[in-house]
Amino acid sequence: MVFYFHDIVYNGENYKNATSAIVGAPEWGNRTIMSSPNNFGDLIVFDDPITIDNNLHSPSIGRAQGMYFYDQKDIFSSWLGFSFVFNNSDYKGSLNFAGHDPLMNKTRDISIIGGTGDFFMARGIATLRTDAFEGSVYFRLHVHVKLYECWKLL
Amino acid sequence: MVFYFHDIVYNGENYKNATSAIVGAPEWGNRTIMSSPNNFGDLIVFDDPITIDNNLHSPSIGRAQGMYFYDQKDIFSSWLGFSFVFNNSDYKGSLNFAGHDPLMNKTRDISIIGGTGDFFMARGIATLRTDAFEGSVYFRLHVHVKLYECWKLL
Amino acid sequence: MVFYFHDIVYNGENYKNATSAIVGAPEWGNRTIMSSPNNFGDLIVFDDPITIDNNLHSPSIGRAQGMYFYDQKDIFSSWLGFSFVFNNSDYKGSLNFAGHDPLMNKTRDISIIGGTGDFFMARGIATLRTDAFEGSVYFRLHVHVKLYECWKLL
Repeated sequence: MVFYFHDIVYNGENYKNATSAIVGAPEWGNRTIMSSPNNFGDLIVFDDPITIDNNLHSPSIGRAQGMYFYDQKDIFSSWLGFSFVFNNSDYKGSLNFAGHDPLMNKTRDISIIGGTGDFFMARGIATLRTDAFEGSVYFRLHVHVKLYECWKLL
Repeated sequence: MVFYFHDIVYNGENYKNATSAIVGAPEWGNRTIMSSPNNFGDLIVFDDPITIDNNLHSPSIGRAQGMYFYDQKDIFSSWLGFSFVFNNSDYKGSLNFAGHDPLMNKTRDISIIGGTGDFFMARGIATLRTDAFEGSVYFRLHVHVKLYECWKLL
Repeated sequence: MVFYFHDIVYNGENYKNATSAIVGAPEWGNRTIMSSPNNFGDLIVFDDPITIDNNLHSPSIGRAQGMYFYDQKDIFSSWLGFSFVFNNSDYKGSLNFAGHDPLMNKTRDISIIGGTGDFFMARGIATLRTDAFEGSVYFRLHVHVKLYECWKLL
């Protein structure tokens, strides 16, 4: 299963289009501009559309909802806690993710720690790749979901 | 296993009774009133009593401790990361939960991602139901814990 | 596997040496001094060195990166979501942790909820012990990692 999700960070002027917002920041930061250096300490809550191709304007087939925060002082790196939420004819249910995301690596794996509905008791790995990155406002992630456990409810 | 837990959000005037507090909010929000619309971006840390019936004043048999944040712009929806902590004659140990909680659904499932003590290596699902909701200050959740894995330490 | 990690909280004057920073706090708190009482509601993002002995100045063999927040009103207690990140000759990959950490207990267990690389599909327990604690700025944790599941990629 391969998906894309799209994140547009609130910058003080794009409320209508923004899909995420800084809600925590260190003392030297604020909630409309990423903290410097390396966004360290910024915590972002997101409500991002999921698409099956790399076009932000394609029909969304679900939402990626949760948080990430930047947790390295000397390079861009983050930690994610979020869910993929599906309610369409192919998939109903949610996948829960958590883990370290070293953004500067071309690909990186995070853990799938559980799921509900069609993804009952899911465990596995998601391989992330940054597919686009425009300044500090827009990025797009390519996500390859690999489930190694998933139970069927009888 | 069925439990209730009770959350009273700090609103600037109820410090003594409050069991939770907003600790992060988007630029348009603050830490005593939920952000509008749909509380999007508010992050709450909680220390809630667990009871076996729906009465806030019943003896507490444990604590539900952790965080939730609201992560949908157009409806009330949240994401939870928390633990049930027990230290009584029936149960000693903690259960760790994480996942998507679409509040407007009558029931919804989140993942049990681990446990300690009597709940060593637990995995499963908790089915949540909002049992009461009074403005933006008090809510009560009915929680049905369903463990599909749990190991015994020998 | 036994490790130490070292946390130096930003207090407004130690930016260069700090490995963590308060990024969320309740209305009665701030981002350079822990909130009173019991730090309740403070959320800290950290980027801490991991060492194999208890010396902060020993060569670091990895990073402990993530967050913790204080979630009990009447005592010091916290909740952790973080990763151990290794990229050395012994270990390559990450371990993801989540759970309740009752700091006042001599030892306490949190859940290992997943892993990547050498720790693919890891599950288990980490036993934490506070090895040193100096005011509200420095602490050192002794971590005993116990994996009960871990898959080998063929």
